[in-house]
Amino acid sequence: MTSPLPLGPSSPATHLPLLEHFRTVRRTSETLVADLSDADATVQSMEDASPAKWHLAHTTWFFEEFVLGQRMPHYTPFSEPFRYLFNSYYEAVGARHPRPRRGLLTRPTLDEVLAYRETVDEAMETVLESPHTEAELGIIVLGLHHEQQHQELLLTDILHLFAQNPLRPAYALRPVPVAVTDTPHPPEWITFDGGIVEVGSAIDAPFSFDCEGPRHAALLQPYALSSHPVSNRQWCEFIDDDGYQTAANWLSDGWAWVNREGIEAPLYWESRDGTWWHMTLHGLQPLDLDAPVTHVSFYEADAFARWCGKRLPTEFEWEAASAGLALDGNFADSGRLAPMADRQPNVGVLRQMFGDVWEWTASPFLPYPGFQPSPGAIGEYNGKFMCGQMVLRGGSCVTPAGHIRPTYRNFFYPHQRWQFTGLRLADDR
Amino acid sequence: MTSPLPLGPSSPATHLPLLEHFRTVRRTSETLVADLSDADATVQSMEDASPAKWHLAHTTWFFEEFVLGQRMPHYTPFSEPFRYLFNSYYEAVGARHPRPRRGLLTRPTLDEVLAYRETVDEAMETVLESPHTEAELGIIVLGLHHEQQHQELLLTDILHLFAQNPLRPAYALRPVPVAVTDTPHPPEWITFDGGIVEVGSAIDAPFSFDCEGPRHAALLQPYALSSHPVSNRQWCEFIDDDGYQTAANWLSDGWAWVNREGIEAPLYWESRDGTWWHMTLHGLQPLDLDAPVTHVSFYEADAFARWCGKRLPTEFEWEAASAGLALDGNFADSGRLAPMADRQPNVGVLRQMFGDVWEWTASPFLPYPGFQPSPGAIGEYNGKFMCGQMVLRGGSCVTPAGHIRPTYRNFFYPHQRWQFTGLRLADDR
Amino acid sequence: MTSPLPLGPSSPATHLPLLEHFRTVRRTSETLVADLSDADATVQSMEDASPAKWHLAHTTWFFEEFVLGQRMPHYTPFSEPFRYLFNSYYEAVGARHPRPRRGLLTRPTLDEVLAYRETVDEAMETVLESPHTEAELGIIVLGLHHEQQHQELLLTDILHLFAQNPLRPAYALRPVPVAVTDTPHPPEWITFDGGIVEVGSAIDAPFSFDCEGPRHAALLQPYALSSHPVSNRQWCEFIDDDGYQTAANWLSDGWAWVNREGIEAPLYWESRDGTWWHMTLHGLQPLDLDAPVTHVSFYEADAFARWCGKRLPTEFEWEAASAGLALDGNFADSGRLAPMADRQPNVGVLRQMFGDVWEWTASPFLPYPGFQPSPGAIGEYNGKFMCGQMVLRGGSCVTPAGHIRPTYRNFFYPHQRWQFTGLRLADDR
Amino acid sequence: MTSPLPLGPSSPATHLPLLEHFRTVRRTSETLVADLSDADATVQSMEDASPAKWHLAHTTWFFEEFVLGQRMPHYTPFSEPFRYLFNSYYEAVGARHPRPRRGLLTRPTLDEVLAYRETVDEAMETVLESPHTEAELGIIVLGLHHEQQHQELLLTDILHLFAQNPLRPAYALRPVPVAVTDTPHPPEWITFDGGIVEVGSAIDAPFSFDCEGPRHAALLQPYALSSHPVSNRQWCEFIDDDGYQTAANWLSDGWAWVNREGIEAPLYWESRDGTWWHMTLHGLQPLDLDAPVTHVSFYEADAFARWCGKRLPTEFEWEAASAGLALDGNFADSGRLAPMADRQPNVGVLRQMFGDVWEWTASPFLPYPGFQPSPGAIGEYNGKFMCGQMVLRGGSCVTPAGHIRPTYRNFFYPHQRWQFTGLRLADDR
Repeated sequence: MTSPLPLGPSSPATHLPLLEHFRTVRRTSETLVADLSDADATVQSMEDASPAKWHLAHTTWFFEEFVLGQRMPHYTPFSEPFRYLFNSYYEAVGARHPRPRRGLLTRPTLDEVLAYRETVDEAMETVLESPHTEAELGIIVLGLHHEQQHQELLLTDILHLFAQNPLRPAYALRPVPVAVTDTPHPPEWITFDGGIVEVGSAIDAPFSFDCEGPRHAALLQPYALSSHPVSNRQWCEFIDDDGYQTAANWLSDGWAWVNREGIEAPLYWESRDGTWWHMTLHGLQPLDLDAPVTHVSFYEADAFARWCGKRLPTEFEWEAASAGLALDGNFADSGRLAPMADRQPNVGVLRQMFGDVWEWTASPFLPYPGFQPSPGAIGEYNGKFMCGQMVLRGGSCVTPAGHIRPTYRNFFYPHQRWQFTGLRLADDR
Repeated sequence: MTSPLPLGPSSPATHLPLLEHFRTVRRTSETLVADLSDADATVQSMEDASPAKWHLAHTTWFFEEFVLGQRMPHYTPFSEPFRYLFNSYYEAVGARHPRPRRGLLTRPTLDEVLAYRETVDEAMETVLESPHTEAELGIIVLGLHHEQQHQELLLTDILHLFAQNPLRPAYALRPVPVAVTDTPHPPEWITFDGGIVEVGSAIDAPFSFDCEGPRHAALLQPYALSSHPVSNRQWCEFIDDDGYQTAANWLSDGWAWVNREGIEAPLYWESRDGTWWHMTLHGLQPLDLDAPVTHVSFYEADAFARWCGKRLPTEFEWEAASAGLALDGNFADSGRLAPMADRQPNVGVLRQMFGDVWEWTASPFLPYPGFQPSPGAIGEYNGKFMCGQMVLRGGSCVTPAGHIRPTYRNFFYPHQRWQFTGLRLADDR
Repeated sequence: MTSPLPLGPSSPATHLPLLEHFRTVRRTSETLVADLSDADATVQSMEDASPAKWHLAHTTWFFEEFVLGQRMPHYTPFSEPFRYLFNSYYEAVGARHPRPRRGLLTRPTLDEVLAYRETVDEAMETVLESPHTEAELGIIVLGLHHEQQHQELLLTDILHLFAQNPLRPAYALRPVPVAVTDTPHPPEWITFDGGIVEVGSAIDAPFSFDCEGPRHAALLQPYALSSHPVSNRQWCEFIDDDGYQTAANWLSDGWAWVNREGIEAPLYWESRDGTWWHMTLHGLQPLDLDAPVTHVSFYEADAFARWCGKRLPTEFEWEAASAGLALDGNFADSGRLAPMADRQPNVGVLRQMFGDVWEWTASPFLPYPGFQPSPGAIGEYNGKFMCGQMVLRGGSCVTPAGHIRPTYRNFFYPHQRWQFTGLRLADDR
Repeated sequence: MTSPLPLGPSSPATHLPLLEHFRTVRRTSETLVADLSDADATVQSMEDASPAKWHLAHTTWFFEEFVLGQRMPHYTPFSEPFRYLFNSYYEAVGARHPRPRRGLLTRPTLDEVLAYRETVDEAMETVLESPHTEAELGIIVLGLHHEQQHQELLLTDILHLFAQNPLRPAYALRPVPVAVTDTPHPPEWITFDGGIVEVGSAIDAPFSFDCEGPRHAALLQPYALSSHPVSNRQWCEFIDDDGYQTAANWLSDGWAWVNREGIEAPLYWESRDGTWWHMTLHGLQPLDLDAPVTHVSFYEADAFARWCGKRLPTEFEWEAASAGLALDGNFADSGRLAPMADRQPNVGVLRQMFGDVWEWTASPFLPYPGFQPSPGAIGEYNGKFMCGQMVLRGGSCVTPAGHIRPTYRNFFYPHQRWQFTGLRLADDR
């Protein structure tokens, strides 16, 4: 996978001419499936996940539907049925293939989908080389960020698919560096004063999703954050202390979930001869105890925090704390595709805020004061999901570099855990 | 939970010595079942509801378990199996009869449950007449508020049960006054400045549940509230405008719910020969178009607001606006047991904030900053439900008078609607 | 259905004028609920079961719908809604209350249902005292046999309901005789030649259901039947030999059922301190090891037989073997309401063929050659169930005496076991 | 696909040296997937169906497990995990990959499965060229018949998969001959005397599955069979007469199925602009009204017969009538892969008894008198399915020629209809 860098701190479109950036993002998606078979790219392993082929086609449909179709009144789509097959959830655009049935589409083949991409890309390049409106430009940049989101999903969905296979195949064939044996420094508390802070994306920010704004004031009490995400080692202590079997640790819904699903460890963990292994994009691997724990649900993250006598941060505590931090981190572009341990000495600052693992917050995904969704079908992008989901912050080891920013709000249901989701502890001060 | 004594102006115990108050609340529960048969009091019409008999027994179990059992080391329970049968969800207390199976308990009979009440009441009166600790007093007062909550549930659960019966039996046999024919005045907007407001229950408040505190500062933007709850007449317009069939009105989860469940109107509404009727505690009745709409879910309330181009208030907007209002309203004690229209002329104030219908807010049920659940089993009362549910405010026509206050937080899942749940519109200013 | 009159030696109506017989059967149903509360008679403990009150009303509906309504063109039903509420499954008669919701009907009360019975009985007595057609007579006799079937169901449904209650209440309050301690004689094989035998009910038989005919020839190979049903003692050996955990014993559907449902013993068995108890109509009782095993499904019966290296008899093997046996046995009228051990010395004859436990056969419930259902709604009585169910023979300890005969075919799905169902082994010769 | 012919009337092994026959059958399976992509061969469209790749691997596993592994004590399997992945339902052999998860195996790839086949085939050829026991020979011949069964399933499973795709892709790319326009002759009744007939497979028959024996006497009443299967034209009349909406046509279980699933036509039928089309192995095609109806369930077949005032034949009526008929018909080898109309003049004989469509009988799949399953794991082949399923006779248009015979018993659950299943009417005489 080639790096789309150099990219600036807040938008992929900042420093690159848009056409070049378009090519880079589109090419990256194709690179991600280079080692997948047609079958790997076709199967859907659960309703939450989508086939790799579908991600490739849907991101293309986005440009065809919202740019080409809008711009050219007589535009002939590459394939009329694709308009139905590759719409995700835009009610305003029309009917669509039911989500749980995406994996039944052995046709079009992966090659046909790649041909679809090529055709749409050619038309898009013509658009990009011609004059276009600000609105059009906005949609194109949105489409690229949208595609980066699907690049991350493609990786997490493939991991889920391969984890269902008793052969435990590896997606990434490069050897992983062996874990270093010296133990990292224990996390420390970093404190913050709170008060009235400004949060959310400003109207003149380079790019952000509609749900990141409007920028507004929020009131915070004094608080502290852990310098590091919670590690696998800490999680093992939770398990060993019967954390999953102790009702007092759990929210009521979480306790019901744990018992109904028989949850006893993070997703992908397997105990073999008394040792924990876990399924990764490199196949089944021994657990690196010092790496951040990942593939835990909000319920688990919340239970762990309560077991510690701590809590999860709110999204605004997280955002205020992250202001001014460099957007460095372990992202997809490194090719490591797994969270890694931080072995630098502590120097009283937050570490690993970006990359490695998405961090569950205590905040439900809600509209900010004055929030208005974008007009038209694009308004369905985020707004209609503002119920029942929790905000995560910071990006992960499979987030494209340059895609993340302090105001970025990811969101999932509290039971979901096939993304690279972890946590960082917070406390009152 | 902070100590509830001395009881202040907003508590049912205000004007009565505690013993007298205990007797009143306990007697009220028994009055509620006076016209129910043993069978009426036994059947469970859905998993969310409980049998009337169960409510009577569980509220008694509360006193037995948390007062009598704690106070007297060698206390012999009225019935050992009752400790298992009538625990609701207190994991710390031990195993319990599964909630969905509460309606299979034809034994003990209603008479036996009443005998159970009598025995426990006698022991409780002895306690109340003796010296007791502050902590004990706190639990007793909590138990009385707990019982009032179950009085409301008993009524909504009976309504649900009777609504399943094609005979549409009436719970309340008294005739209902016919609706007055002159149309009420249309609602008006009442505006508020926002800014930093204090919300939540103060530590020295007469009584509140643990989830109502700590009292803390919240930051509000300028806003407006409708003077009145949304009426049945307004809801009919929503229906006639295909409100239930238009995806753009709905949150994604709500749209899935509407389609999965085939929802086309509030719960209990029935169209007969082109006219809307609804099932009430007085049996099947013609709809009073000017009364507040009720038995709508959060999804429906939110969709209605979006259809209007408005929104639901946050719980703090609601609470700040209610400060200083009299705690008057249409409560259970009136015996009307149905929301009613307000036909007074508008005078620029909020109306019907208390009583009539619980008002859905835009706020998920979350812990306030610094929230700590009470220690022990009582800590399970509210805290473990702080995920996935939405806050409602203001009480309803089946809430006992004196039970409600501005800081009171009720909470239900966004799809639930068997309570008397309605809404009041809000808007930015 | 062929005309049931004149009534012969195997019918309960034999020795009684029809009016007298009508009164006896009707009164018996009411006797069965004498010790039940309104709540006991209202709750439905699973979809397969019906409330006692429903049985009382439905058997009354049968006479109202098929006799009174047919005979009198202007007949006014006792209650128009009852025609909807108490139809069971007769599509030709019209819509009906959904089966799984029978337990939500707290109204009409048990007393109202008894009043319904009284009113219909009076009208029926007038009919019985007047001239009536053969067809009408046939329906009335059918209605009485129908009611006897529901008497048995009422008892098994109450047992199921009471078994859900942790208090394990007793339906029958009379003490049960303690088990005799001397061990019965082991069962012996009784052999039969087979050949062409006549089976089914002859056209001039006193009464039979339509599915028992036409009488026809069947071809049997030589075979043997066990002299006795399988006992609890034998079943314990099956359990101790991991019978429920050994796939090779089980039909594929049965193995899936055992694993899906976690089946490890007959229904109602409970292990307490290493001893088997079971829930009975007398409450929780120690297991009588020498009594016939009961509350086993067809899957279990078949698995047990395969574990023994034997098989279940076909329904024609059973019927041919029963020809000429006296219709004696342990029936409901004895009041014992439980299978009992046979302690008589073996004398080379079949024992306990009638009463005690229904015996699963290897035969699916299918139409006999030339079978035609009765015309009209009554034709739905048996014919439409001829798919997926297995035949049982011989009646049980809760079958009314006089209701059973050698040609009688009962039928249930292979997983059902809340009836008093057991088995008798067969073998080839 | 090459024809394995010439083959004798009852066994593929009769006239060909076994090695040659082995090669032909194995090659045929591979020919069937020649035009499928890796993805086509991987996806599982429902729990009842299996991926093409799985069929290829499982039939290979059969030879590896039951021949190579048995013969060679130190045999090293091609892949240890394949023993787990490709066991179907043989409990005695060990654990296996859960059936509903067969479609998640994107690895091994189709090419790897073909390599697996090649390796096992080489070892099998060595075995076939060496001396082998009768038992071994029996297993090998069984393995070939087993593979032919899976060839048929592979085709019906691919049809099911492609029918889920809105693109309605064609499996068979050759053009289908257009339907001839002259109407076929109406069917006539062919009568039979009944009496005692011999049915089942004799012990010295060339090959049969264990469930086809023992040969034994059966007693039949005089009966008649229709000369032809029921046609699509007849089925349209059933639909037009509200056949699917009329409860009186249906068995109780069937009526529940029709309503629960919303069934209104045979599987794969689609109404487009008032005309019926159906999905076939040649893609979406207009319905040939004169061809036999197919893809109907037992419930539908039974309902149709009842609507006609007729019935389905028993399996023994069918078998006795088929004795002496030539094993000609429209089988898979013709490449047509669809049932076809018979346009020959009637001459008083049964037509299309073999091939075209499997014919549902009125007979549940039960053991014949004296039936003993084969010893060991192979005994699970048929015996454990003898509950809840119905017998079908005669083979279909996707059955390999030479695979069928008069005693052949196929079996499916009464709701299943993704096989090429139709019906022939019967009547009493």
